[in-house]
Amino acid sequence: MKIKGKNYRSVWMENNSIKIIDQTKLPEKFEIIELKNIDEVCDAILTMKVRGAPAIGAAAAFGIAQKAFTSAESDFYANLKKAKTDLLNTRPTAFDLFYAVNKVYKAIMKTDNIKNAKTVGLKEAQKFADENVEACKKIGEYGDELIKNNFRILTHCNAGALATVDFGTALAPIRIAHHNGKNIFVFVDETRPRLQGAKLTAFELSEENIPHAIIADNAAGYFMQKGEIDMVITGADRITANGDAANKIGTYEKAVLAKENNIPFYIAAPISSIDFNCKSGKDIPIEFRDENEIMTFNDIQIAPSKSHAKNPAFDITPAKYITGIITEKGIFKPTEIRKLKEIK
Amino acid sequence: MKIKGKNYRSVWMENNSIKIIDQTKLPEKFEIIELKNIDEVCDAILTMKVRGAPAIGAAAAFGIAQKAFTSAESDFYANLKKAKTDLLNTRPTAFDLFYAVNKVYKAIMKTDNIKNAKTVGLKEAQKFADENVEACKKIGEYGDELIKNNFRILTHCNAGALATVDFGTALAPIRIAHHNGKNIFVFVDETRPRLQGAKLTAFELSEENIPHAIIADNAAGYFMQKGEIDMVITGADRITANGDAANKIGTYEKAVLAKENNIPFYIAAPISSIDFNCKSGKDIPIEFRDENEIMTFNDIQIAPSKSHAKNPAFDITPAKYITGIITEKGIFKPTEIRKLKEIK
Repeated sequence: MKIKGKNYRSVWMENNSIKIIDQTKLPEKFEIIELKNIDEVCDAILTMKVRGAPAIGAAAAFGIAQKAFTSAESDFYANLKKAKTDLLNTRPTAFDLFYAVNKVYKAIMKTDNIKNAKTVGLKEAQKFADENVEACKKIGEYGDELIKNNFRILTHCNAGALATVDFGTALAPIRIAHHNGKNIFVFVDETRPRLQGAKLTAFELSEENIPHAIIADNAAGYFMQKGEIDMVITGADRITANGDAANKIGTYEKAVLAKENNIPFYIAAPISSIDFNCKSGKDIPIEFRDENEIMTFNDIQIAPSKSHAKNPAFDITPAKYITGIITEKGIFKPTEIRKLKEIK
Repeated sequence: MKIKGKNYRSVWMENNSIKIIDQTKLPEKFEIIELKNIDEVCDAILTMKVRGAPAIGAAAAFGIAQKAFTSAESDFYANLKKAKTDLLNTRPTAFDLFYAVNKVYKAIMKTDNIKNAKTVGLKEAQKFADENVEACKKIGEYGDELIKNNFRILTHCNAGALATVDFGTALAPIRIAHHNGKNIFVFVDETRPRLQGAKLTAFELSEENIPHAIIADNAAGYFMQKGEIDMVITGADRITANGDAANKIGTYEKAVLAKENNIPFYIAAPISSIDFNCKSGKDIPIEFRDENEIMTFNDIQIAPSKSHAKNPAFDITPAKYITGIITEKGIFKPTEIRKLKEIK
C-alpha cells in the first residue's frame, strides 16, 4: 500500500526481525515497530497493534519462525510448542492465525534436523505472507469485475492492506476499480467500538485519493434505504464450510439491511480464512473484548461509572445473506465454497 | 426522574425563568442552566443542551411564552412572530417543536389584549409540559403491559425523562415494569455519533438502579440473533399518518433486524409527536448535522484530516417494521393511528 507515496506491507521480516505498522497509532502517527520475540508478537496481536485476519496470520507465522530461528537446539521443540500455544491463545475468532501457525509449525516439525528446520520456518512464514499478497491481488481483480462505473460501495471495519499483508480483501477490488479509472465512491462505516473504519480504512483511502465518506454505523441503513449504496463488500475473519462468515461486529447488521434493500452483499477473503472443519457459524468462537472499549474513549470515561458494557468483537453472517464470496480462485456462492477444499 | 435521589424534570419554568438540565454535560456533570431569552433557547436546542422531541417542544413552548411575557407591548406581535420563526428554524425533524410552538402561539394570538395574552402564553406552555408528563406516565402504564418478567429489552438513543419533560417515552414502560418488581434487563445502544445511549439512557437507568448494559450499535444484531433480546422499544421524533416513524439514526436498522429475528419492535410516543398532515415518512425532512460529530471526539480528531463524513441525524422506520405504537391513549398498530386524529 502507498503511505506518503512509499510502498509498505503491514507486516514483514527484515534480517530475521519482524516489523509491523502499529495500527493503534493510525491515522495520527505512522509508526513502524519491531517485534523482538514471541511475547512481543503475542502482545501486538492481543492489543491489536497488528489486526485483520491475514495480517494476524502473517505476524504469527513470522513469530513462530523467529522463535525457531533463535531457539537453542537443546530447548528447540519445547520452545516451539510453547510459542505455538501462546500464539493460538491470543485471539479466538480469526482463522488465518490457526492456519498460518499450523502451517509453519508442521513444516518445521517434518524437517529432519534442527538447523534446516530453522530456515524452513522462515521460508514457510515468508511464503504465507507472499501468497497472501498474491491472493489479495487476485481478489482485487475478480472483485473489480463486479464494480460498475459510478458505483457507491459500503464497507465495514478495515479489510484493507493493513488488515492483510498488502492490498486488502474488501479494499482490493475498490483499489483496482479506482486505479482502472472507474468513478467510485466508498461509504466507510466508522466501525465502533474501535473505529477501524474511521481510522484505518479512511486512512488507506485518503492515502490513495479514493473518494469516500465516513458514516456512523447507524447510518448505513439510511443510505441503503435512500438508494445511495450499490453494493457492500466486507472482509471475513473466518468462513465455515456452509458459507457462513464471522467478521467484525456489525457485519451481520449490514448484511441483513443489504438483503432487505436488494443490495448485493459480498465477502472478500483468501482461502486461508476458510475453516472447512467448521460446519457452520454457530461453531465459531466469538471473542468478547474489554468493556472499556465502549465505556471510555482515549481513556476518558464516556458512560456512567456504575454502568457496564457488553462487547462482542465479531458476529456471524449466515450464508443466506451473502451474495458471493470473492476469493483468489474466483467468486463463489456461499454454498459452493466447499469446492475449494481440494485446492486448499 | 430521580437524580441523586431528588426529583427533576428535564425542563421547567421557575418565576418566568426557563431552567434545563444541560444534557451535553451528562453523565460527568449534572448542571442546571437558565435560558434567559429566545436566543438562548434556540442555542440550547441547536447545540442539544436540550434534546428529545417532547423536551425540545417544552423548551420551545416556554421560550415563546417567555418572549411574550417580556416583550414591550409596542413590538409584541412582531417579536412573537420572529420568536416563532427562530424556534421553528432550529431543528427540522422532531414534530413536537412545531406542535408546541404553534399551540402556544395560537393561544396567544387568539387572546384579545396583550396583557392577558402574556399570561395565556405561560399557562399554555406549562400545560404542554404537564400534559407531556401525564402522557408519558400513561405510555409507561400501557407499555408495561407488554413487558413480561425476565424480559430483555433493547432501546436506542435516549427516549427517557431527559428527552421528554419527565418519565420518558421508551423508558417509561421500562421504569414502570422495574418499579412494579419485574425482573428486566435493558440493552442500551450507545447511539453514535452523539452517544445519547451511553451517556443519557445509561445515566437514567443507573440513577434508578435498573439493570442494563451498554452495547455498540453494531452489536444489537448479534444479541438479537443469539435470542438474547425479547423486545425493542424506541421513541420517535415524528410519526406520520401512515404509521411511519422518524427517530434517531440507526432506529431503522434495529427495526429491520428485529423483524428479521421475529422480535416485537415498539415505538413509544405521545400524540403530540404525530404529524397527521404528513402522509408518510418520505415527507419528513431529515436533519444532517456537522461532520465533526463523527470526525472528532471531545475535540480530538479521530479520522484522517483529508477525509469527510456524512452525518444524517435521523432515519425513517416504515410502518411495516413497527409492531405497535405505544401512546397515552393505548397501543395502536401503525395503520390504526389515524384514529387518534380526532382526539388530538
